[in-house]
Parts: sequence; C-alpha cells; structure tokens
Amino acid sequence: MLVILVALLWFTTVEASHCSIMARLSLMRNISELSQNNYGRPDLSHTTIVGSVLHGIKEIEVWLQNFAPGSSTPIHRHSCEEVFVIVKGQGTLYLTPSSHSKYPGNPQEFHIFPNSTFYVPVNDAHQVYSLP
Amino acid sequence: MLVILVALLWFTTVEASHCSIMARLSLMRNISELSQNNYGRPDLSHTTIVGSVLHGIKEIEVWLQNFAPGSSTPIHRHSCEEVFVIVKGQGTLYLTPSSHSKYPGNPQEFHIFPNSTFYVPVNDAHQVYSLP
Repeated sequence: MLVILVALLWFTTVEASHCSIMARLSLMRNISELSQNNYGRPDLSHTTIVGSVLHGIKEIEVWLQNFAPGSSTPIHRHSCEEVFVIVKGQGTLYLTPSSHSKYPGNPQEFHIFPNSTFYVPVNDAHQVYSLP
Repeated sequence: MLVILVALLWFTTVEASHCSIMARLSLMRNISELSQNNYGRPDLSHTTIVGSVLHGIKEIEVWLQNFAPGSSTPIHRHSCEEVFVIVKGQGTLYLTPSSHSKYPGNPQEFHIFPNSTFYVPVNDAHQVYSLP
C-alpha cells in the first residue's frame, strides 16, 4: 500500500464562487471524515483535502491518495507542478524529464519510501507505482 | 507541540534557473534529512520540503513546521492561498475573513487538532497558536 499527499497548482476551469461555496462548508475539517472516491478503480482511494471547485480555493489542490499494492497511476502529464509527500509505503516513480522536448528520452526510475518527497515539473510525463 | 504541513503558492521574486539548480539536488529526498532552520526563534523548527528558489520549482512551496507549546506564528497575511494539514498537536487558528474590506471585523477562532485541515484565502489575516 502506498499513501501519498499531493499538492498541485490547479487552475479552475469552472468558475468557482468563493463566498457562496464557502458558506456551505466549514473551514476546519477532519481529514478522516472527508469523503473518499475511487473513480471506478477498486485499487485506489482518493480524498480531496482541498480543491478548487469544492472549496472555492483558486490556486492549490491538496489530495490524499492510497494505492493498493501493485497498482499505479496512469502515465500522465499536466500543465502544473506537483509535489508528493510519501506518508506510508514504498514504490517507484518513473519520470521523463524535459518531456517538452521532441525526444524526451527514457524515463528515469526512483525508489519511493516513507517520508520521502519529490516534485514533478510542468509537463514532465510521470507514473507512480505502489510496490506489489 | 504543533506540527503542520503547509502548501502555498509562492511566486518567486528571485529568478530561479530551473535546470542549473536541479542539477545540484537529487530529485528524491528524505524529509528527515532535510536541513531545518528556526530563523532566530528557539520555539520554531522550519523545513522547506520544496521551495521556489532552492529547488527551481516555480508555483508551489511546501513546508513542515514545528511549533513549541505556547508559541505561535505572527499575525500575518500574504498574496497567496495557504493550505494547512495538522500532523500532530493541537492549537488555535485566528482568522479574519475578508481582510481586504475596509473593516474586516474581529478574527474568528477555530480549534486545530491532529488530522485537521484548513486553508487561508488570499490576504486574509491569520495567526496559528500551539496549545500551551
């Protein structure tokens, strides 16, 4: 099992009304009581600790994600930076630096361990694996 | 003692050269081995998990901060959003919403507890206390 805390800048594509949405949510929240979703994947548990549309926040999203042993994120990239803090478990990060180049080359492989941290630059293709 | 994880968007005032700085730091780092600083305050321990100038990251900073019992942040505000995750300890958040108004009113008081989370909107004056 791999538990990660993710912070990323996420520009809203939906216009979030700060005041009206805030009024429906309490400011102080217990992470243990926040709703989880697996988006149709039984090997994933995702919690949005704070999010742009739900909470009216405009600049940052913070997620808590739990990956079952042997599962992974898809290979993906995005137009924002992403910071990872590993809360629990071990795994592998595959990162292709300079993915904006025409020939980004092969992904580099990094071991992920508890209390480790790393970040993914804008548009760098990456994938995170939970150790089987 | 209050241990908090802070994520905030922090526009660099110093031009950070992404490639040249990255080359001097390993991408995967152990948070336990990162250098700490107290900025002249014996009641504070601050670790920059990832930062704009040090690591060449441009959008987000993530900090780990440890406040001794009875200590606090100054009352302050800033032109970015800030997300808090409470790792350990209890305390109080004082937050003055709508500080951009001419008369922002009195600060609201919130209890901080382990595994709680909150965020501070842009420019809202706030102060975090560690329980004595």
